[in-house]
Amino acid sequence: MPPNASFDLKQYARKHARIVDQALNKLLPSARTKPGTIHRAIRHSLFAGGKRVRPILALAAAEACGGEIENALPVACAVECIHTYSLIHDDLPALDNDDFRRGRPASHKVFGEGIAVLAGDALLTQAFELAAQAKPTPRYPVSDMILDLAKTSGSLQLIAGQVADLEGEGQKLTRSKLQYIHERKTSALLTCSARLGGMSANCTPTQLQALTDFGYHIGLAFQVIDDILDVTQTSEQLGKTAGKDEAADKATYPAVVGLKKSEQIAKKLTDKAFTALQPFRGKAVALEAMAHFLLKRKN
Amino acid sequence: MPPNASFDLKQYARKHARIVDQALNKLLPSARTKPGTIHRAIRHSLFAGGKRVRPILALAAAEACGGEIENALPVACAVECIHTYSLIHDDLPALDNDDFRRGRPASHKVFGEGIAVLAGDALLTQAFELAAQAKPTPRYPVSDMILDLAKTSGSLQLIAGQVADLEGEGQKLTRSKLQYIHERKTSALLTCSARLGGMSANCTPTQLQALTDFGYHIGLAFQVIDDILDVTQTSEQLGKTAGKDEAADKATYPAVVGLKKSEQIAKKLTDKAFTALQPFRGKAVALEAMAHFLLKRKN
Repeated sequence: MPPNASFDLKQYARKHARIVDQALNKLLPSARTKPGTIHRAIRHSLFAGGKRVRPILALAAAEACGGEIENALPVACAVECIHTYSLIHDDLPALDNDDFRRGRPASHKVFGEGIAVLAGDALLTQAFELAAQAKPTPRYPVSDMILDLAKTSGSLQLIAGQVADLEGEGQKLTRSKLQYIHERKTSALLTCSARLGGMSANCTPTQLQALTDFGYHIGLAFQVIDDILDVTQTSEQLGKTAGKDEAADKATYPAVVGLKKSEQIAKKLTDKAFTALQPFRGKAVALEAMAHFLLKRKN
Repeated sequence: MPPNASFDLKQYARKHARIVDQALNKLLPSARTKPGTIHRAIRHSLFAGGKRVRPILALAAAEACGGEIENALPVACAVECIHTYSLIHDDLPALDNDDFRRGRPASHKVFGEGIAVLAGDALLTQAFELAAQAKPTPRYPVSDMILDLAKTSGSLQLIAGQVADLEGEGQKLTRSKLQYIHERKTSALLTCSARLGGMSANCTPTQLQALTDFGYHIGLAFQVIDDILDVTQTSEQLGKTAGKDEAADKATYPAVVGLKKSEQIAKKLTDKAFTALQPFRGKAVALEAMAHFLLKRKN
């Protein structure tokens, strides 16, 4: 399905990213709040030019369900905090050992490992502080949203993906093991972002299932494309170290099934994401456009 | 005020610790749940003979307010997960660099730094998953309990204490700076434990204030005593490295105000904790006994 030609995703994303940035800036302690180090470290990573894919997805899901952006902002900001915390910890020498992130030195390179650990901890905690400030809706108490966020971020999902990734380094992984990692490292939080956006808009059970399926497939596609970009783009284009997966001897889709097949898989997953949106009967234009964009992105 | 002579704290603590252990064992993924490494790491630290002071405090607070233990268990388990996560991360080489904890090798010594970071992250996340399963009461929606837990654990409280501790190493600290650290590193979570227990029992605003004051003073006393024990006890007696504060050139109450004065401060703080319990009119026997015990403890 081609994207709605009259829909300007660039403008939509810019506008919504600005709303998210303003909310994060307002809701989180300023860089001058004591202790200054930790708040500067939090902001160094949180305001580092991230694309805000997850919070925009949450806002778009809320709008697709007829909800107000304002009611979706606490959960949208929460998922961005979870994402940023996971990057800070992932970059640590004991994990992925990456010195650059989003074109800037990683947290531990600027603030030292101790503060980087604590900045990640603080953002993870902040995510729940933000989510706890969401408004309950007739179908969803706030505790349901928090439970969703916690399960997504926990040892069976996001952290399970990190562990499998860490333990898989230097090993020859099968495609199914690779999918296990991608489902948890990437799909889980994108799925949760879409679900929380929907819940903040009091979505119907059918809509919630549609958002779940959409998030799952777009998440897998997102990660396959990330793997593809890592081998096809330069560090400058990516804003982070290119070729690092190969250098770290990490299993990736291109490494396991080849580049061409990887591109086919990404396309197929994106198609499935579109199919998932059918219950919205063409009203989820922003979600559709996001899926198209993520498939075509170059960084 | 002397403790109620007919109250057997040892038996009370043993019984309630067992209830907490059973709940944690039931509510958390088993050691065989995949990925096995992370769940073994979580359990290595969570079931390492901790005294369960915080969850028992939560249960005792709930009982003092006429609540059921069962309703307090989710928040009681949550505060223990927060406590254990903070120990795992605190022990990391980049922070306190401690190889032993509760008489066992620290997480990073057994599982490596990467898994120790992730095990801490998982426990922090688990805490919110548990708290989200609490029952709302007429006065307190679950989101209020989670907000309390998140603020306590965040960059203005628990993590602020860790940062100040980290940055204060090797520096000559004043007594007020030391109190700043203790309030955040220790008092905050003990206060939160008492408050959450009370909230789970639908406590009155007066009771909540009493529990807050009690937790604050008992928390400060607890930490002053920890400092005292670090200089007066052996590693064997403590089950962790003794004298490590001095070795790390850390400011402690004995170092700043002397041992005798530290003991006087601990006594005064404990007295204030007792005074805070007056609204319970003698019904908070377990809380009273805990305060006495914490002052007399040897490890």
